[in-house]
Amino acid sequence: MTTLWLIGIGTGNPDHVTGQAIRALNGADLILIPRKGDAKSDLADLRRQILGQVLKTPVPVAEYDVPQRADQDDYLGAVNDWHDAIAQVWAGTIAMHPGSTNVALMVWGDPSLYDSTLRIAARLSGVTVKVVAGITSLQALTAAHAIPLNTLAAPVTITTGRQLRDHGWPEGATTLAVMLDKGGAFTAIDAGNTHIWWGAYVGMPEETLIQGPLAQVSDTILATRACLRAEHGWIMDIYLLRRGDDA
Amino acid sequence: MTTLWLIGIGTGNPDHVTGQAIRALNGADLILIPRKGDAKSDLADLRRQILGQVLKTPVPVAEYDVPQRADQDDYLGAVNDWHDAIAQVWAGTIAMHPGSTNVALMVWGDPSLYDSTLRIAARLSGVTVKVVAGITSLQALTAAHAIPLNTLAAPVTITTGRQLRDHGWPEGATTLAVMLDKGGAFTAIDAGNTHIWWGAYVGMPEETLIQGPLAQVSDTILATRACLRAEHGWIMDIYLLRRGDDA
Repeated sequence: MTTLWLIGIGTGNPDHVTGQAIRALNGADLILIPRKGDAKSDLADLRRQILGQVLKTPVPVAEYDVPQRADQDDYLGAVNDWHDAIAQVWAGTIAMHPGSTNVALMVWGDPSLYDSTLRIAARLSGVTVKVVAGITSLQALTAAHAIPLNTLAAPVTITTGRQLRDHGWPEGATTLAVMLDKGGAFTAIDAGNTHIWWGAYVGMPEETLIQGPLAQVSDTILATRACLRAEHGWIMDIYLLRRGDDA
Repeated sequence: MTTLWLIGIGTGNPDHVTGQAIRALNGADLILIPRKGDAKSDLADLRRQILGQVLKTPVPVAEYDVPQRADQDDYLGAVNDWHDAIAQVWAGTIAMHPGSTNVALMVWGDPSLYDSTLRIAARLSGVTVKVVAGITSLQALTAAHAIPLNTLAAPVTITTGRQLRDHGWPEGATTLAVMLDKGGAFTAIDAGNTHIWWGAYVGMPEETLIQGPLAQVSDTILATRACLRAEHGWIMDIYLLRRGDDA
């Protein structure tokens, strides 16, 4: 019987790692690390760096190649096929290390939030899944700006760039956190009376923050984002939008 | 010039504390700890326990009495008055320790989520506020149940028990996380086609979890909650509701 530990490690700042994550990594007898081979390889290196800092004794590491996601029109179908393929790679990699009873995967942010590992793990048979929570990019964003996520006793909606583009501002929402935006989904909404707190590479040394009335800073954010992406070869950004009297 | 560090410490499991939080606590020259004197004193003790585990050299600790919140009809007005009163106590306590340049406050969960410390800190003059993110009870809940917060690429709304009681199920939402519920706000909604993942004292040794179709487990949760509250003298619980095909 194998236990698969999905371990949230925060957003790239090794200081985000919790004591619980350190304990789980040290308790593993196999650690899986994705090999992406693209501009995001600095993220794979960050996983290695974190292991170097927290492991008290060496733990075997197995690198695996992440399958490519098909670029088909059916977005959800493509994602499901992709998750099937990754699950097969995980199962094959674990099978190559017989006797591994505690297998660990390091997850950016928290395994609960816009992350695929729980859905992929559910495809494996004979595996018990355990989750260790980690600091999300949303928390790194609000911490960096020193702002609350919610206004007093009010709700918050967390959504994606795609949702914001396709469906606009959600009915009744005053605070909207937007993740997984391929770029500038906020240009699809009315900027009036809306404040934005934006961040790229939150929690990392490259962290870049911009905030202000959306109408005033929208162009600056788009230009900064393009510039940073060209400089680093990749970008991850996130933002909080607030409307109304509390904005 | 004083820097006030609001440091998220997770939900009562000392293992939730991050390296960043440990660094900030060790960098403080004054740590404020609320003295509540009621059944929640085990929470004050947990703060002491965490300090005992993470401080490399002793840091002065100042206990302060938390003012009582008036029980008036105007909820937001009462909360604002209460925050004014707490800010005065913080300012007075800091003033009694002249020369403190890095003052730390340990916050349950994360200072961004349904927490007052950022709003109280904003009332202090001459103080720079820095935030260290911490694991929230919502993350401890999803980790304990080993479930994702969102369904694939879909939004999530985080709200309060009061909002759910007063305004019902939010239009268009499929996943709803409910916090700060005084008890059983889920009985105010139609239980049909709704799944609940409930947890009390998430992350702590007393952690208690129940999940299932809301119509089937609603009574069990209410009875368990009453029982646990009587046993421990206090309760903190949280739950996730999901509707539709993904529930």
